[in-house]
Amino acid sequence: MRGLPSWRWALASVLALLPLMAHSASPAREMPGKPTVKVGIVLFDGVQIIDFAAPYEVFGTAGFGVATVSADGGPVTTAMGLKVAPDHSFADAPAFDLLVVPGGDVQDAMRDEALLGYLRRHDDDRQVMSVCTGAHIVASAGLLDGRQATTFHGAFGGFERLFPEVELVRDQRWVDSGRVVTSAGLSSGIDASLYLVARFHGELRARSVALHLEYPWDPEGGFVRGRMIDLQAPRLAGVVWPDGTQFQSLYSVGDTTRWTARFLVTTPASAEELLALVAADIDGEDDWVRDGDGNAWHRDIGGQRKRLAFETEPQGKEGKFYLTYTLD
Amino acid sequence: MRGLPSWRWALASVLALLPLMAHSASPAREMPGKPTVKVGIVLFDGVQIIDFAAPYEVFGTAGFGVATVSADGGPVTTAMGLKVAPDHSFADAPAFDLLVVPGGDVQDAMRDEALLGYLRRHDDDRQVMSVCTGAHIVASAGLLDGRQATTFHGAFGGFERLFPEVELVRDQRWVDSGRVVTSAGLSSGIDASLYLVARFHGELRARSVALHLEYPWDPEGGFVRGRMIDLQAPRLAGVVWPDGTQFQSLYSVGDTTRWTARFLVTTPASAEELLALVAADIDGEDDWVRDGDGNAWHRDIGGQRKRLAFETEPQGKEGKFYLTYTLD
Repeated sequence: MRGLPSWRWALASVLALLPLMAHSASPAREMPGKPTVKVGIVLFDGVQIIDFAAPYEVFGTAGFGVATVSADGGPVTTAMGLKVAPDHSFADAPAFDLLVVPGGDVQDAMRDEALLGYLRRHDDDRQVMSVCTGAHIVASAGLLDGRQATTFHGAFGGFERLFPEVELVRDQRWVDSGRVVTSAGLSSGIDASLYLVARFHGELRARSVALHLEYPWDPEGGFVRGRMIDLQAPRLAGVVWPDGTQFQSLYSVGDTTRWTARFLVTTPASAEELLALVAADIDGEDDWVRDGDGNAWHRDIGGQRKRLAFETEPQGKEGKFYLTYTLD
Repeated sequence: MRGLPSWRWALASVLALLPLMAHSASPAREMPGKPTVKVGIVLFDGVQIIDFAAPYEVFGTAGFGVATVSADGGPVTTAMGLKVAPDHSFADAPAFDLLVVPGGDVQDAMRDEALLGYLRRHDDDRQVMSVCTGAHIVASAGLLDGRQATTFHGAFGGFERLFPEVELVRDQRWVDSGRVVTSAGLSSGIDASLYLVARFHGELRARSVALHLEYPWDPEGGFVRGRMIDLQAPRLAGVVWPDGTQFQSLYSVGDTTRWTARFLVTTPASAEELLALVAADIDGEDDWVRDGDGNAWHRDIGGQRKRLAFETEPQGKEGKFYLTYTLD
């Protein structure tokens, strides 16, 4: 097999991490060496691509054996439309040492008794890891009762309402509760997977995998979405928008102290009518105090007085306008 | 639709970025609003999961329309075994504004005339982005001639030999050569995708997407795998290992100035015989100078004298030993 381009060799599995030995007598994929850790990734309709794909990549690169499993073993359509064919059904899946539960559109999955039963079945024998709203599924199965957990930043409120017996952690990229490791939203699953590689095989192995994946891994902190100030903004959960009203997000950016977001709104109502709905909802909350009679409020957040203001601008076309809010 | 848990709404597509408006009159997925940018992702047997999954997630979250395409439209088996069903064949694929070419095991793909022809067909009309060794495919199609490009760090040497007419960039996470954007290995595709979201729709949109994905995006730099010192180590390209010799990487870590890697070696040969093969290969290179008659060499790297040393240790079982190298 001499003459194989080095990158082919270099990309495969465990051997990927061997920069000095770019050519081998036998191709990497025929390496025996049974995987030390068997990973099962649960798939379901509506699963978020990166939630399952990133752990697959991390664990596979670490030399773990990775397989996918769904209720009936049939094809699954992910949240954005990609179609994936699982390796196993719940019935014919082998025993796994580590079960990954991704998130996405988990409305149905968290009520699917076949899935919940599968999660409960070997609860004592194996490690479970959730990514994003996969925490909702794991919590629905009761595996998080009395434990700390985290989830997607946009789901904090709903998670707390649904699972009062779980202690929600809002400011960590992943939470280790022993038998269950939960990670925050989407890309956080990369970090939680690296953390578990370290727990199974040591930090050096995990750092090797991160370097191979060219991933800027910072186990000690870095970006923590759960501290961003937009999480303190009112969620307008009580508003019933006029039929046909649509919001297109143009941007939504900020940091721990300031946030601004801008939307293109399409609606049969007027800008004034929509702002009145927003205002009525915020006025109904205890913590926000209106500034005069404009579309601005203030409250104390983390010991600082913060201001929330809404503005609208015509877009030019009938039935469309820009809506911008600033929290600072 | 009142009462939908906010996270369901929050996870879907463009509307994901709307923290204030967690409940909507209509579910997000029924939003009309045609996608402004149509993205096609090329799939082939051996494609690396994260190379196509991460761009899918980023562009989908940004509100781009994403579809997958393969030569015949039939199922594809990725590099680590995941099976995916593409949306289109080359023949029935619609026109795309942006074509993503992932990497992985591209040996066959880079010689596949159907794929190369598909890439060349609309060369003038659309943006192309490669991830990892996807650059090899794009280069094989001739789309990188006379341009700058980057690829997976383990593939730098092979890329330069195969494509002398392309100017290889070794120290960037992605390279914008106008009609073609190439990214470095694996997770680098996330950054290149965010960069293209910014090019199509502005930096605020790209920052919104990164925040939603909870991805620590640092467009101005951060981790650049291509500067790591292991790339300066000899690649032992001339060694023919004894039949049955296998290397399992235990770790391979370091930074821009120091590297150490440890392997479990299974071989019918002795440690001394393997070290002799290594030594003969390195002695055959011009730049490394042996220190005495031990298994250590030195050379000048970036104006500094660097030392490369090999050590072996018995593992305990017959035919197995540990091999460690240090470059510092």
